[in-house]
Amino acid sequence: MVGAPQAAGGPERRLLELGISLPPPPTPFGAYVEAIQCGSLLFLSGMLPVIGHEPKYTGRVGTELTLSEGYDAARVACLSGLAAAKSHLGTLEAIGRIAKLGVYISTAEHFQEHPKVADGASELLRDIFGAEKIPPRVVLGVASLPLGMPVEIELIFEVAR
Amino acid sequence: MVGAPQAAGGPERRLLELGISLPPPPTPFGAYVEAIQCGSLLFLSGMLPVIGHEPKYTGRVGTELTLSEGYDAARVACLSGLAAAKSHLGTLEAIGRIAKLGVYISTAEHFQEHPKVADGASELLRDIFGAEKIPPRVVLGVASLPLGMPVEIELIFEVAR
Amino acid sequence: MVGAPQAAGGPERRLLELGISLPPPPTPFGAYVEAIQCGSLLFLSGMLPVIGHEPKYTGRVGTELTLSEGYDAARVACLSGLAAAKSHLGTLEAIGRIAKLGVYISTAEHFQEHPKVADGASELLRDIFGAEKIPPRVVLGVASLPLGMPVEIELIFEVAR
Repeated sequence: MVGAPQAAGGPERRLLELGISLPPPPTPFGAYVEAIQCGSLLFLSGMLPVIGHEPKYTGRVGTELTLSEGYDAARVACLSGLAAAKSHLGTLEAIGRIAKLGVYISTAEHFQEHPKVADGASELLRDIFGAEKIPPRVVLGVASLPLGMPVEIELIFEVAR
Repeated sequence: MVGAPQAAGGPERRLLELGISLPPPPTPFGAYVEAIQCGSLLFLSGMLPVIGHEPKYTGRVGTELTLSEGYDAARVACLSGLAAAKSHLGTLEAIGRIAKLGVYISTAEHFQEHPKVADGASELLRDIFGAEKIPPRVVLGVASLPLGMPVEIELIFEVAR
Repeated sequence: MVGAPQAAGGPERRLLELGISLPPPPTPFGAYVEAIQCGSLLFLSGMLPVIGHEPKYTGRVGTELTLSEGYDAARVACLSGLAAAKSHLGTLEAIGRIAKLGVYISTAEHFQEHPKVADGASELLRDIFGAEKIPPRVVLGVASLPLGMPVEIELIFEVAR
């Protein structure tokens, strides 16, 4: 694609090389939309580790779920975010930088291993968009998440012109 | 209003039709301001369900408060956000898209009904701005909120040119 | 500096007058970067009260830690954010407005004194950037934070042209 923001190894090609299929784009659980573009920023709704509307995981990381399950939950939720972005933009090639990754993890009060869970999303984005596009991130341990799920992902993308 | 971003059914008119009066704009509880515009984005402080500086509700949703009270708390906090935006912009007609709605709900650990609470804000925005402007949203269950209130609302608006 | 966004009392000068030395810029605990600029907005990763990679404080505010320690933790984390911004931009003079200050405080469920903790960050920003640049803020009590730290700070800066 001439003039595409990424040349040879753009994100769509990397998905193929990595053998990753995006899930169907998520659909809302309530009165909201999954994505909206304001200027060059694409804001997404919080993404959950669902398959369709079914939670892949429920419970808190470090209590009912292991770190490894938390890592996978962050990855699955992030894949939904990419599916939502692709559904809105037509192609992941339209993504420039990634402005924000928020990783919100349902935990008990003494949990401390947040970075290991958040890496499930960060490493997916690195693998697909390349090391030079790893985003900053905000990682919090929260009291509860919709439907008892363990991780929610917030993404703000920059849309390349 | 000629050239207004919304013609007949703009948000100011919808407020009238719905019989909704915005509360007085909120004033800070500390060293912060309620709103700031950067480029075309208007960022607001977290909005609480207060009347003046008095909490309308205290306690956690699903524990001390019912879902229905949580829904109303989200609606009341969102109305404060609209009052803050109007105070800054002069009129709600200046609002283009709504980039982000964050709904942060004080809950115990096993709460799962976040979407039903968050709809209190989403449905208000839909009723006032129209279904085509329902924003994406990020919904979290948190451990506590200022002054023991049950819901806090974050809003980022796009300012129309 | 001719043409700088702030003239006499810019933030670099205020740091000197206040006798504040910024810490070394923070380095990541995982697969993320500390800052990224998209258009005129500079998004930072969540900032923690660390000295190097060592937590200055651990525990929850209002339980293991006093309000005064929470205030200082918010201030220390905010200083790291300024160091990250300066590292990215070269100088704090490049900062225009401050779009968002998020203050996320690890608390037990009945904590209510969030504004007094958040003022540790807000008052620092006021002292350095001036009262006319105090940002809006979003303050939440969360269940846990990375490595057991008591406060995390989110900052989005506007970069002046």
